[in-house]
Amino acid sequence: MPELRKDPIVGRWVIISTDRAKRPTDFMRDRVTMKGGFCPFCNGNEDKTPPEILAYRPSQNGTSNKANSPGWSVRVVPNKFPALGIEGNMNRQAEGMFDKMNGVGAHEVIIESPDHNMTLASMPEKRIEDVLWAYRDRIVDLRQDKRFKYILIFKNHGEAAGASLEHPHGQLIALPILPKHVREELEGAKQYYVYKERCVFCDLVRQELEDPIRVIAENDDFVTLAPYAPRFPFETWILPKRHESAFENSSSHIFENLAKSLKQLLMKADLVLDRPAYNLVIHSSPVQEPFNEHYHWHIEFMPKLTKTAGFEWGTGFYINPTPPEEAARFLREADVSEFTPPPPVKVEVAQR
Amino acid sequence: MPELRKDPIVGRWVIISTDRAKRPTDFMRDRVTMKGGFCPFCNGNEDKTPPEILAYRPSQNGTSNKANSPGWSVRVVPNKFPALGIEGNMNRQAEGMFDKMNGVGAHEVIIESPDHNMTLASMPEKRIEDVLWAYRDRIVDLRQDKRFKYILIFKNHGEAAGASLEHPHGQLIALPILPKHVREELEGAKQYYVYKERCVFCDLVRQELEDPIRVIAENDDFVTLAPYAPRFPFETWILPKRHESAFENSSSHIFENLAKSLKQLLMKADLVLDRPAYNLVIHSSPVQEPFNEHYHWHIEFMPKLTKTAGFEWGTGFYINPTPPEEAARFLREADVSEFTPPPPVKVEVAQR
Repeated sequence: MPELRKDPIVGRWVIISTDRAKRPTDFMRDRVTMKGGFCPFCNGNEDKTPPEILAYRPSQNGTSNKANSPGWSVRVVPNKFPALGIEGNMNRQAEGMFDKMNGVGAHEVIIESPDHNMTLASMPEKRIEDVLWAYRDRIVDLRQDKRFKYILIFKNHGEAAGASLEHPHGQLIALPILPKHVREELEGAKQYYVYKERCVFCDLVRQELEDPIRVIAENDDFVTLAPYAPRFPFETWILPKRHESAFENSSSHIFENLAKSLKQLLMKADLVLDRPAYNLVIHSSPVQEPFNEHYHWHIEFMPKLTKTAGFEWGTGFYINPTPPEEAARFLREADVSEFTPPPPVKVEVAQR
Repeated sequence: MPELRKDPIVGRWVIISTDRAKRPTDFMRDRVTMKGGFCPFCNGNEDKTPPEILAYRPSQNGTSNKANSPGWSVRVVPNKFPALGIEGNMNRQAEGMFDKMNGVGAHEVIIESPDHNMTLASMPEKRIEDVLWAYRDRIVDLRQDKRFKYILIFKNHGEAAGASLEHPHGQLIALPILPKHVREELEGAKQYYVYKERCVFCDLVRQELEDPIRVIAENDDFVTLAPYAPRFPFETWILPKRHESAFENSSSHIFENLAKSLKQLLMKADLVLDRPAYNLVIHSSPVQEPFNEHYHWHIEFMPKLTKTAGFEWGTGFYINPTPPEEAARFLREADVSEFTPPPPVKVEVAQR
């Protein structure tokens, strides 16, 4: 008998097909591949992007410290084709019965490595830590602009996950409104808090660690687990063990362990799921609000294993062929201590 | 400047990129193709599906009237790999802090034509009407089972939209709960009704017909339009002009015009978007509830033009590169009076 499970935060029911469970090898799909060609994000091509907003340049022998020059480890630039414009006011207005406003916001690209063939899974932990610090620094800078209610950090890896450029990069979008799912998560967490006077995520972390069937890994600061009612096969969350409502307000000492958790998860996914395309999203509190007791920032990792889910888009109803307990077991048991993530598969294409 | 637009029903904000609008030819993607091979849904293979639940067999010369024999125009069978099981009770229970229940429900396949190469766009209107009647008849039958709160009718056309079988077919899922998006739509519509004492969809139809920049087509009973805040490029809704909360309770005389509207939209999409993969969902009121004044059933059509939207999944925030006014103009101006939708493109594959 399939099982219906309810997400304790947003109240979304999900069908878990326990009967015909899909194992990692049951998903037919393409590995993340590289086509090559010219890349504006590569080291040495700094003049091919809009001028940089931020870059970390480890002061090593011989490297320059000049903006928009080579020698950086992480580099943040405005998106050349932004979804939102940085100038102007929101100008909320009616259009008959409808409502609209100007698309004011920021859209930035976090170039995670100067090396085109690197992935977050194969980068040294220290470099991943740099990427996380870049995320944080950009949020702290942008939240000074009071027009921005929410700042989203996300990453599309691989064409199937919506990445249009191969070079390892994340994205940041600063928005004048709260996205719908974020609002629902916040409201769900608030309701739980009102009823129980405890954070739902803190409860979840505690319960999952007591009987760790859905736990994939943990360290002093983070737990990596498969959520009880996942929308997608092998959906995984990384949660801080101690309550903190906003990613950017985390104590600086946890960034090292976050980089470790993230690298470990991505390596395990590369090993078990054969280098899948994926989406990664940081869920955090609205940037203009003070610390709160009810929301708990975390990372959601969604490998792109099923070909489409148009039906899910239409209805918000998810059918997941892999029970989270099984997904967690595969990822937990994957031994990556000796594993070196290979670079993405190269495909031969005619030179343009 | 991009524009943020709010969906008046669920309150979802969408970014419309008015600056770099995408025209139909800007979307790179695959047409719907056929690989051929054995098909359990074809005429003559009736013994390869579970026994039929319903079939229409026009009594023509020489055709049999026997169940599970050839000669049908529409045929409904249980899904061989159902997402939900029809037997048993829901048995709601806790699992620590979590909630679950048995996946009780029905999962049926509506085989829309005996001809493998037919599509809803190329079928005669009379045959489409049969399909709509089959949808209705199945809902009316299943709603007698009081365990089912909601009955979803949807259709995935083409592999990119999640169809695993090529033969033209729709699906029905009867659920013991309301899907999240449905609940949100119902609640949004209810709120509007409480405030205005009018149905939001009735208001929308009236306003859109007054200044028809987003209207694609209309007849006496239906209007086909691009919604004000569409999530996807070329997203299109078909709405009944007169208020009715549930699809299956519609007056029988409107089915003819609904078949006309649907065929016309699918032909226009085939012409303008070059036979796209698509999802089609009937949005209707919960089946166990009586007629209501606030919700208005309709069809949502979502062609699969953008390769993925993993980011949207993660956040519920949509970026749509095609303003609905432009999408509507392309579809409105497409003249399909002389157009014969070609069968899906055949691709040569080695025989298995």
